Amino acid sequence: MEGEEVWRLWEAMRARAPLVQCITNLVSMDLMANTLLAAGASPAMAHALDEVEDFVAIADALLVNVSNLSSDWNAAKKLAAARAVSLGKPWVLDPVGCGATPYRTTACLQMLRLRPTVVRGNASEIIALAAAAGDYQRPPGAAGGVKGVDSTAGSHEALAAARALAAARGCVVAVSGATDLVTDGRVVLGVDNSVELLTRVTAAGCALTALIAAFLAAAPAAGAGALEAAAAALAVFGVAGEAGLAGAPRPGPGSLRVGLLDALQLMGREEVVRGARVRLIAAGGGGGGGGGDGRVQ
Amino acid sequence: MEGEEVWRLWEAMRARAPLVQCITNLVSMDLMANTLLAAGASPAMAHALDEVEDFVAIADALLVNVSNLSSDWNAAKKLAAARAVSLGKPWVLDPVGCGATPYRTTACLQMLRLRPTVVRGNASEIIALAAAAGDYQRPPGAAGGVKGVDSTAGSHEALAAARALAAARGCVVAVSGATDLVTDGRVVLGVDNSVELLTRVTAAGCALTALIAAFLAAAPAAGAGALEAAAAALAVFGVAGEAGLAGAPRPGPGSLRVGLLDALQLMGREEVVRGARVRLIAAGGGGGGGGGDGRVQ
Amino acid sequence: MEGEEVWRLWEAMRARAPLVQCITNLVSMDLMANTLLAAGASPAMAHALDEVEDFVAIADALLVNVSNLSSDWNAAKKLAAARAVSLGKPWVLDPVGCGATPYRTTACLQMLRLRPTVVRGNASEIIALAAAAGDYQRPPGAAGGVKGVDSTAGSHEALAAARALAAARGCVVAVSGATDLVTDGRVVLGVDNSVELLTRVTAAGCALTALIAAFLAAAPAAGAGALEAAAAALAVFGVAGEAGLAGAPRPGPGSLRVGLLDALQLMGREEVVRGARVRLIAAGGGGGGGGGDGRVQ
Repeated sequence: MEGEEVWRLWEAMRARAPLVQCITNLVSMDLMANTLLAAGASPAMAHALDEVEDFVAIADALLVNVSNLSSDWNAAKKLAAARAVSLGKPWVLDPVGCGATPYRTTACLQMLRLRPTVVRGNASEIIALAAAAGDYQRPPGAAGGVKGVDSTAGSHEALAAARALAAARGCVVAVSGATDLVTDGRVVLGVDNSVELLTRVTAAGCALTALIAAFLAAAPAAGAGALEAAAAALAVFGVAGEAGLAGAPRPGPGSLRVGLLDALQLMGREEVVRGARVRLIAAGGGGGGGGGDGRVQ
Repeated sequence: MEGEEVWRLWEAMRARAPLVQCITNLVSMDLMANTLLAAGASPAMAHALDEVEDFVAIADALLVNVSNLSSDWNAAKKLAAARAVSLGKPWVLDPVGCGATPYRTTACLQMLRLRPTVVRGNASEIIALAAAAGDYQRPPGAAGGVKGVDSTAGSHEALAAARALAAARGCVVAVSGATDLVTDGRVVLGVDNSVELLTRVTAAGCALTALIAAFLAAAPAAGAGALEAAAAALAVFGVAGEAGLAGAPRPGPGSLRVGLLDALQLMGREEVVRGARVRLIAAGGGGGGGGGDGRVQ
Repeated sequence: MEGEEVWRLWEAMRARAPLVQCITNLVSMDLMANTLLAAGASPAMAHALDEVEDFVAIADALLVNVSNLSSDWNAAKKLAAARAVSLGKPWVLDPVGCGATPYRTTACLQMLRLRPTVVRGNASEIIALAAAAGDYQRPPGAAGGVKGVDSTAGSHEALAAARALAAARGCVVAVSGATDLVTDGRVVLGVDNSVELLTRVTAAGCALTALIAAFLAAAPAAGAGALEAAAAALAVFGVAGEAGLAGAPRPGPGSLRVGLLDALQLMGREEVVRGARVRLIAAGGGGGGGGGDGRVQ
């Protein structure tokens, strides 16, 4: 995927300025809404049971973050996702902390059954979700345990689980890590724009997932599918993180967060085209493996 | 309204350091509390049903943001507003997203009946609220639809609705926009200190509404009414936004948010007196129109 | 307590990278999670009734902030604290706004009975809590009233209340102020690293309390007790605040918040050893008084 294509999909998103409804955890709301605004989308943090379905009707895409598991929030999430599917609107699932507690894993599975367009998680979460769904069998002694909501595995360790999950559920799966991976079960794209320090900024992954929802809203009109939309969102977020860190007065998480939002607003075509690093990891002709390193950019 | 008067009302607010109770949506809490602290007030984000009325008793002013429509939050908002009125304390209503869903519009109307001192919204919200309340009839084919929680109209398009709403409800209505408008139904003030980029900082409008509540708490002792207090708060927030943007390393929303809070803490008399741009748009002698451009500053 | 010891306890915390479960108010979540991440811990903002106890089982320490008094949150806080005690894990209580309303004071007392390892509050809160618990009698005409969630007293005015509370409840009590005080009922340590401007950054105190929980998780393996762990956390947070302010482009609360997080990530051994100012205020040999000024650092 060329950097030009990443830019084109971002421009399409900004031209549409999609209304992205977000039902998320409490700690991520601020950064998520600010990320969407800076990148050119319009956030709506609407979750009340009595209006959640009406909001889906006016929204262009939906983000459901499984964290914040109070019972009324859970009900709102299910109603919203079901309505999104029935209206043909894309929705993205963020299975935060899947595997950390039985209750949380169950909640993730319930949301998965509502057919998300994209699932985005870290390696531990994707492995736990695919295994709990019965789509993937974790090899004995494998890495990938969860530590609260943090991953203990690299993204490549979750590739087989991600492909299995995507294939079984008919969705796109994105795995965050040093290299972000995106797959529809056959094709695998890798995005090399990660900034390690972003793991020290709370809710960066949550905000990124909402950005995927925004890109999904505009993808069909731009002739792109969910795979390309997700990869483009990951690349834009990653390039913005790199630019934010490079322009920061200090390489700390406070400055990075400020710089990330600035960059999402201010980055121009050249920075994105030059900076985006999306490569084809597997073309999807055959099955299984994680081979291929042909940088397509 | 002279810049000197804006400064005098801010000084009166800081001398009082009012305790402002805020019942608001989840995404705005951080910026709202920080805005109040930086400007010299004392925030209390207290909403629990069992203590909300006791908190009003010790607070100097109340802010109710209609977003976050869970049923227990709604009940807390009503109890708090009713108690504020019975104790003669000012309270401000922020009808976020009014018009976006039927449930939300109903919630706004319920709060409106509890007699807010000031209502602050964007143009779409004020038009939708005035129309739903039966105080204003939207002209056929008029602008002002809502897009989630964002306005699709300019503030001047909401002037007639704002005046009608203020007159019918006996409150002051403020409409945010490129020029902020404030009216008690007769007099109309315009504040020209808006910063366009603030629309890319989530909850900036919510935070501003809380600042109005803080100014209201100190206005009577300073010999000012709700109209002047609201205009002064809008001007201070706007000048701080301008200063924050001017002093920022990059003209992005991350830096703007940081600079806004810094400026609210650090701005001095000269910056405010020189920067505040409040003008009389209608003196209130007659009815209707939006004429008058006599810059009073 | 030497600066070297402060550094050693921080290094021990970072080596462990403890999972700190936080059940806190809504306004503090963002800064709390970012503070823990920047300082080297792993936050988990998990509060749902159905998983809260399972989360304690995988966490290394627990923070309970008494604010946000909705009934299901209260129940979750009690379940979590009780589970922490039964599993021998440290937990810290932040009695925000104790004394502001009767309901809030009652909630604080209920949590106090669940035997926190450390209680951290401002002077007004500690005085109100100790008095409400019956552990301390407020002298007639004494200072220390509460203003919403802000203190109206200095930390030294709360020393007698803090010692009485700590002695009666078998916990460590920390009182924030110009000099932070930490006591187990006998020994009293003073930390002189406060930054006055941090009182203008919302949730700074809440975030600090979570950092104490992180230090507690690693203290036993480092041969330290709760008293030393709390003092070290207070010193690290204070030194980071001083460094953040010194390196800020402007001495405002927006920049301070950014600089604080940067410093928590970036500060090195020399800054901490040179900057930490912990002194012995009372050695605990006798009873009562607040004497002693021997700087031990």
